[in-house]
Amino acid sequence: MAKKIPHRLYLTEEQMPKQWYNLRADMKEQPDPLLNPATLKPVTAEDLYPVFCEELARQELDSTTRYIDIPEEIQEFYKMYRPSPLIRAYNLEKALQTPAKIYFKFEGNNTSGSHKLNSAIAQVYYAKKQGLKGLTTETGAGQWGTALAEACAYYKLPLTVFMVKVSYEQKPFRKTVMQTFGAEIIPSPSNTTIIGKEILKNDPETTGSLGCAISEAVEKAVSTPGYRYVLGSVLNQVLLHQSIIGLEAKTAMEMLDEYPDIVIGCAGGGSNLGGLIAPFMQDKLTGKASPRIIAVEPASCPSFTRGKYAYDFCDTGKVTPLARMYTLGSSFIPSANHAGGLRYHGMSPILSKLYHDGYMEAVAVEQTKVFEAAVFFAKQETILPAPESAHAIRVAIDEAIKCRETGEEKTILFGLTGTGYFDMTAYNAYLSGTMTDYIPSDEDLQKGFDLLPKVDI
Amino acid sequence: MAKKIPHRLYLTEEQMPKQWYNLRADMKEQPDPLLNPATLKPVTAEDLYPVFCEELARQELDSTTRYIDIPEEIQEFYKMYRPSPLIRAYNLEKALQTPAKIYFKFEGNNTSGSHKLNSAIAQVYYAKKQGLKGLTTETGAGQWGTALAEACAYYKLPLTVFMVKVSYEQKPFRKTVMQTFGAEIIPSPSNTTIIGKEILKNDPETTGSLGCAISEAVEKAVSTPGYRYVLGSVLNQVLLHQSIIGLEAKTAMEMLDEYPDIVIGCAGGGSNLGGLIAPFMQDKLTGKASPRIIAVEPASCPSFTRGKYAYDFCDTGKVTPLARMYTLGSSFIPSANHAGGLRYHGMSPILSKLYHDGYMEAVAVEQTKVFEAAVFFAKQETILPAPESAHAIRVAIDEAIKCRETGEEKTILFGLTGTGYFDMTAYNAYLSGTMTDYIPSDEDLQKGFDLLPKVDI
Repeated sequence: MAKKIPHRLYLTEEQMPKQWYNLRADMKEQPDPLLNPATLKPVTAEDLYPVFCEELARQELDSTTRYIDIPEEIQEFYKMYRPSPLIRAYNLEKALQTPAKIYFKFEGNNTSGSHKLNSAIAQVYYAKKQGLKGLTTETGAGQWGTALAEACAYYKLPLTVFMVKVSYEQKPFRKTVMQTFGAEIIPSPSNTTIIGKEILKNDPETTGSLGCAISEAVEKAVSTPGYRYVLGSVLNQVLLHQSIIGLEAKTAMEMLDEYPDIVIGCAGGGSNLGGLIAPFMQDKLTGKASPRIIAVEPASCPSFTRGKYAYDFCDTGKVTPLARMYTLGSSFIPSANHAGGLRYHGMSPILSKLYHDGYMEAVAVEQTKVFEAAVFFAKQETILPAPESAHAIRVAIDEAIKCRETGEEKTILFGLTGTGYFDMTAYNAYLSGTMTDYIPSDEDLQKGFDLLPKVDI
Repeated sequence: MAKKIPHRLYLTEEQMPKQWYNLRADMKEQPDPLLNPATLKPVTAEDLYPVFCEELARQELDSTTRYIDIPEEIQEFYKMYRPSPLIRAYNLEKALQTPAKIYFKFEGNNTSGSHKLNSAIAQVYYAKKQGLKGLTTETGAGQWGTALAEACAYYKLPLTVFMVKVSYEQKPFRKTVMQTFGAEIIPSPSNTTIIGKEILKNDPETTGSLGCAISEAVEKAVSTPGYRYVLGSVLNQVLLHQSIIGLEAKTAMEMLDEYPDIVIGCAGGGSNLGGLIAPFMQDKLTGKASPRIIAVEPASCPSFTRGKYAYDFCDTGKVTPLARMYTLGSSFIPSANHAGGLRYHGMSPILSKLYHDGYMEAVAVEQTKVFEAAVFFAKQETILPAPESAHAIRVAIDEAIKCRETGEEKTILFGLTGTGYFDMTAYNAYLSGTMTDYIPSDEDLQKGFDLLPKVDI
């Protein structure tokens, strides 16, 4: 008899992961190392200490420890909002008339509204433990800034957030949420940093970008005694912390005697995707299973599908180490009509390497198609998804429709990273028919590629 | 050895209630009946059929059936977002240095952002089953409208929402959420109804009230073939559906060998409070236990603490039956500086009767104190509460502080009805110091009392 599959499966506290999983330990070939842009030599942990908290710098460079203990304090914090549910999308399946089984891991049931809290609390814990006086970061759509503000409020650690100016102006409520948790919010570029002043001098009308905001946040961190910089995506340490998503999902699926044929996640810098796929990618790397793994990115910011696999700066101001990744060039600024997050010019080096080596696929989707999927999903499953998450929904729906056509009973798992409560302007644009799509031309992209740093690989 | 209490306890699907609990069946004295305002005779179910769906009209008047089966389709829908967690507020306890044990039942983890979905889906189910063509309702803060829009989208039933004009203008995003689910939203008072036109003629600058919006929604329902009116609070049927909150909470507490000494809920029309307290009030009515039960209302709309227990209209336009309840008079409009919901002039007749008979207490709190509690809570428990819910938080904190002073290890349970994502304007006012308190004068209240209908009791 088929096992009865509940709508929502929550692990018990005892079943929750007590270790994060470090995907690098199972990669046959490692991602290329971060390079010091002055010397073009691989950075050491010590090189990173002025910018990053020490334990996080070590995690960043640790490619061998397969499992890393989650400190008990972080485990306790996780229990405040985790485990997140694995949800069987029965109604979506029915509406699509698909034989596919659709599951999603829903990370939106916490105030930050997304999975970002998983890494935020870890980073703040290590910062507090090191005795730091404060943190800086950047935020675009605002999910990371909110998550970090929550974590900093919990540990009573001051936080300055550089918020991409266009978001600061379009999303005043995101700012208020972060302020409610006690964070200081500065629109970026700002005249509070040297790099910000320079960017404003060259382009007084700029609406900002994640790359600019990173430059400002790093400058503020290294110039303020006892401060360090933290980042919510791209980095190896972030993927490590986010592995809790995939570990919980895999345990829950095992309890249901299920295993995904396809795992789908949205990709901006890779934090959610890297976390969700981690244990399934492990199976693939170790030959235990061979699920299809699909990254979904916006057609307006297509780093995987149209970027170069090259060394590049992680920021616009060129103050960070160089990372080898799929990139559109650190000068790339996505079209202003692009809604939501997933606006970053680069991509996690780990995911870039796995994609380069053929372990994953990538698809770029246009935003009107994404919102169409979001609204359809909301009506079936009653969850209003974040625009970022809706990228994954789009492709999950497309794959389920293919199953309807072929009759295949595939098991699909996707990551629903968050809720869209702070994205109603974008929903309104979609509903009123004023939302447009934007696909950068090859010429536009070439301008970014021309400015890539020259590094022999 | 003390039982290990998890941070969050979710019942399994099997443990979820399969029946609602009808509190009236255990009340020694019944609430006074609804009266036909023309005849002053008790209304019959048939009297209500032109306005309400038939099954809901029967539930409204059923004071004897103790348990009512939850139809299987509704049970299935509940499984999409329920059970809601019972959460032990460990961090709040620690921050308050209280020996009290603080629990809360969190209903905010669904897209409507509140408990309102519990009754919305039930009402839409019965409407669909009756073959109705559409529904009308009103919404103030927007939680009820959102919940009903979700439920109507699920059942593909057209919905028209009359949204109190001040909310419509201050909360454009609430409107967009409801539109995402396919609802039609009309700011009230509007010129789409006779009563709306009349109200606008008398006061063209009015910002509207729940009472006005109810009148318009009822008029639209009775004048549109196949349409009926639904309401998210006050009514007996709503308290019945919302009993799932208390039933789940009680089962979860039993699993932990716990029983509350104090149960606290916010009160506007009484939907959350009536649902949360239902099984605990049953224990009190039947002599099994004697928890303190506290209703918390805004000082600016103090129906329990300063209202009259009298027959009154449920709406401003005087188109509804008369209900005996604690009321400020159907002409009462709360101060424009009042944030969030809990703006209704009256109160659930069931809760009014229980309060009148001494089974519950009531406290009125000022909104700056409410937001102070909200921000404090958010920093400890990482959940950004709705302003409505924060009324309960305020009193839970106050009771926990009393325990710190007396050393008593009381068990406190409160209802956290929803999240504050759509209330950031109010949070911003609080954080920036521009939020003020308003307490109506006795003279102001007397004006409302003078207009109460004359009914011999």
